[in-house]
Amino acid sequence: MDFKHGMGVFTEKMPDLARKYNAFSEACFKEGKLSKKEKQLIALGISIFSQDEYCIIYHTKGCLDQGCSEKEILEAIGVCAAFGGGAAMSQSVTLVQEAITDLSQENDKLH
Amino acid sequence: MDFKHGMGVFTEKMPDLARKYNAFSEACFKEGKLSKKEKQLIALGISIFSQDEYCIIYHTKGCLDQGCSEKEILEAIGVCAAFGGGAAMSQSVTLVQEAITDLSQENDKLH
Amino acid sequence: MDFKHGMGVFTEKMPDLARKYNAFSEACFKEGKLSKKEKQLIALGISIFSQDEYCIIYHTKGCLDQGCSEKEILEAIGVCAAFGGGAAMSQSVTLVQEAITDLSQENDKLH
Amino acid sequence: MDFKHGMGVFTEKMPDLARKYNAFSEACFKEGKLSKKEKQLIALGISIFSQDEYCIIYHTKGCLDQGCSEKEILEAIGVCAAFGGGAAMSQSVTLVQEAITDLSQENDKLH
Amino acid sequence: MDFKHGMGVFTEKMPDLARKYNAFSEACFKEGKLSKKEKQLIALGISIFSQDEYCIIYHTKGCLDQGCSEKEILEAIGVCAAFGGGAAMSQSVTLVQEAITDLSQENDKLH
Amino acid sequence: MDFKHGMGVFTEKMPDLARKYNAFSEACFKEGKLSKKEKQLIALGISIFSQDEYCIIYHTKGCLDQGCSEKEILEAIGVCAAFGGGAAMSQSVTLVQEAITDLSQENDKLH
Repeated sequence: MDFKHGMGVFTEKMPDLARKYNAFSEACFKEGKLSKKEKQLIALGISIFSQDEYCIIYHTKGCLDQGCSEKEILEAIGVCAAFGGGAAMSQSVTLVQEAITDLSQENDKLH
Repeated sequence: MDFKHGMGVFTEKMPDLARKYNAFSEACFKEGKLSKKEKQLIALGISIFSQDEYCIIYHTKGCLDQGCSEKEILEAIGVCAAFGGGAAMSQSVTLVQEAITDLSQENDKLH
Repeated sequence: MDFKHGMGVFTEKMPDLARKYNAFSEACFKEGKLSKKEKQLIALGISIFSQDEYCIIYHTKGCLDQGCSEKEILEAIGVCAAFGGGAAMSQSVTLVQEAITDLSQENDKLH
Repeated sequence: MDFKHGMGVFTEKMPDLARKYNAFSEACFKEGKLSKKEKQLIALGISIFSQDEYCIIYHTKGCLDQGCSEKEILEAIGVCAAFGGGAAMSQSVTLVQEAITDLSQENDKLH
Repeated sequence: MDFKHGMGVFTEKMPDLARKYNAFSEACFKEGKLSKKEKQLIALGISIFSQDEYCIIYHTKGCLDQGCSEKEILEAIGVCAAFGGGAAMSQSVTLVQEAITDLSQENDKLH
Repeated sequence: MDFKHGMGVFTEKMPDLARKYNAFSEACFKEGKLSKKEKQLIALGISIFSQDEYCIIYHTKGCLDQGCSEKEILEAIGVCAAFGGGAAMSQSVTLVQEAITDLSQENDKLH
C-alpha cells in the first residue's frame, strides 16, 4: 500500500513527529468502552464522508480485520449516505465495495 | 430545537420530498446487523468531522437516547480526533461536551 | 450585515487584492448564457453544501433579489439534500428558511 | 461507469435502503418550479465544489443530457470558482472539461 | 475561551489520549526549519479554509503572539481567498478581522 | 500537467473570466510582507487539508521553486497533520512526498 510505504519514508525523516502521531493514533483506536471494531466502523464512516481514498481503503481493511461482516459495513455506508447524501454514496458503492472484494480475496489466499 | 421546527416548516411546504427523505433516513438508522447505538456513534463521528453544529447536537442526543455512556462518546471523539485532528477536537471539546451536560440535565429533570 | 462591513474594512487595507477579487467575482455572476438568477441558485446550492453561514444568507438574498420564488429556493434545497444528505438538510431548514422569512419581511417594509 | 455498476451491487445487497435512496433522489431531481436542467446545473456546481470525481462526471453528463451547452457549463464553473477559488477551478478545468469532450463524442457516435 | 475550558474538561476525563494529542500537537508547532510564526500562519490559512471558528480565533491569536503584523495576516487571508474563494473570504473578513481587533485591544490593556 | 493544459482550454473559451481569475490569483501570491515562499507554504498547507490532488502537486512545485528545502515542506505537513489528522497525513505521505521526489529529479535533469 502506498500509504504504508509513504508513512515509512516520513517516519525516517521526521522520527519525533511520526512517533508522537502514532502514539496519539494508537491511543484513539485501542480497545476501550468502545471495541476496536466499533472504532474502525466510526473511522470508516468519517473516511467515506471525507472522500479520503487512502483512509477509506485503510479502514475498510480495519473493519474486516476486526471481524466486521460485509452487511455491517454496508449498514455503516447507509449511515454515511443518510448524512452525506450522494457524495458519500458514490464513494461507498465504488471504493468501499471494491476494497471489500479485494481484501476478502487476499484473506482467502492467505488461508 | 431550531432543526425540528425548521424541518416541520419544510415538510409542510415540500411534503413529498420530506416524506421520502425521512423514509430513507429511517432506513439508514434502523436496528440491523449494527445496533441503533452503533449507528448513532458513527453518525456522531461524521457530524463532528463535518463541523455541522445541528447534527453534532442531534446525534449526541441520539447517542445518549440509545444508552451511550459519556465515556463511550468521548472515545468516539478520540477516533474523530485521530482522523480530523485539531479541527475535530475543537468541535468536540466544546459543542459535544456542552450537549452532553445540557442533555443529561434535561433527562434528570424528566425523571 | 457583518460580511459587508468586514469586506469594507478589508478593502481599505488591501485595496488592490480586494479590487481584483471583486472584478473576478463580478465576472462570474454577471448575466450570460445562464441568467443571474440561475447563477445565484447554483451559488446558494454550493453555500448550503459548504455550510458557510455568511454565504448562505448572502446568496439566499441574491436569489430573492433575482426574483426567485420560495418554492424555487426550496427545490434548490432539495438538490442539495440529495447531494449532501442530512448535513445539507440541517443548514437548509434552519438558516435558509429563516433568511427567506427575514429578507421577505424587509422587502415588504420597503414597499 | 464504475458508479452505475457499484450502485447495482449495493442495491442487490441493501434493496430497501437503495430503493428509498432512489425514491428520495428522484424526488429531488424531478421537474418542478426549477427545470431538470437547472437542477443538474446546481448539482454540478456542488459536485465540483465537493471535489467528488464520480458526481462531477455524473452531473456533467446530467447537464449535457438536459441540453446544456458547453458555454452554460463553463459559466456554472465560473460560479464555482467564485465560491471555491483555485480548488474548484482545478477540478473544473480538468475533470469537467474532459467529461464534456468524452461525453460529447459518445453522443456523436450514437447519432 | 470556550476551547480552553473544554479541552481542560476533556483532559480530565481522557488523560492519556489528551496527553498524547498535546505531545503530537506541540511537536508539530515547535520551532524548526520553519519558525513558529510561519507555522501559525500556515495553521491560520487552514483554519480559515476549513471554516472552523474556534481554530480561526485560536491561530489568529497564535499569529499575533508570534509577532505577525496585521498586514501579514491579511496577506495570508489573500492566499486563502485565492484557494478557497468567497467561502474563505467571508470567514476572513468577519471572524479574523474581529479577532485581530479584539486580541490587539486585550494586548494593549495588558501593557 | 493536466491542470496547465485544462486551464489553457478554459482561458480560450472564457477569456474575460480567466484573465480576472489570474489577476486576482497573482495579487494573492505576489511578494509582500510575506515572502512568495511563505505564501506557497500556506497554500500547500491548505491544499493538503482540502485533499485537492492538483493543487497539492502545484503548490509542492511552488514551494520547491521558491527554494523550500524538503525539511521545510515536511514541517508544513506536520502543521497540516496537527490540524487535519490522519486525513491530512495520508495525503501528505503519499502525494506530497512523491511530488518532491519527482520534481527534484526533473530539476536535476535541467541542470
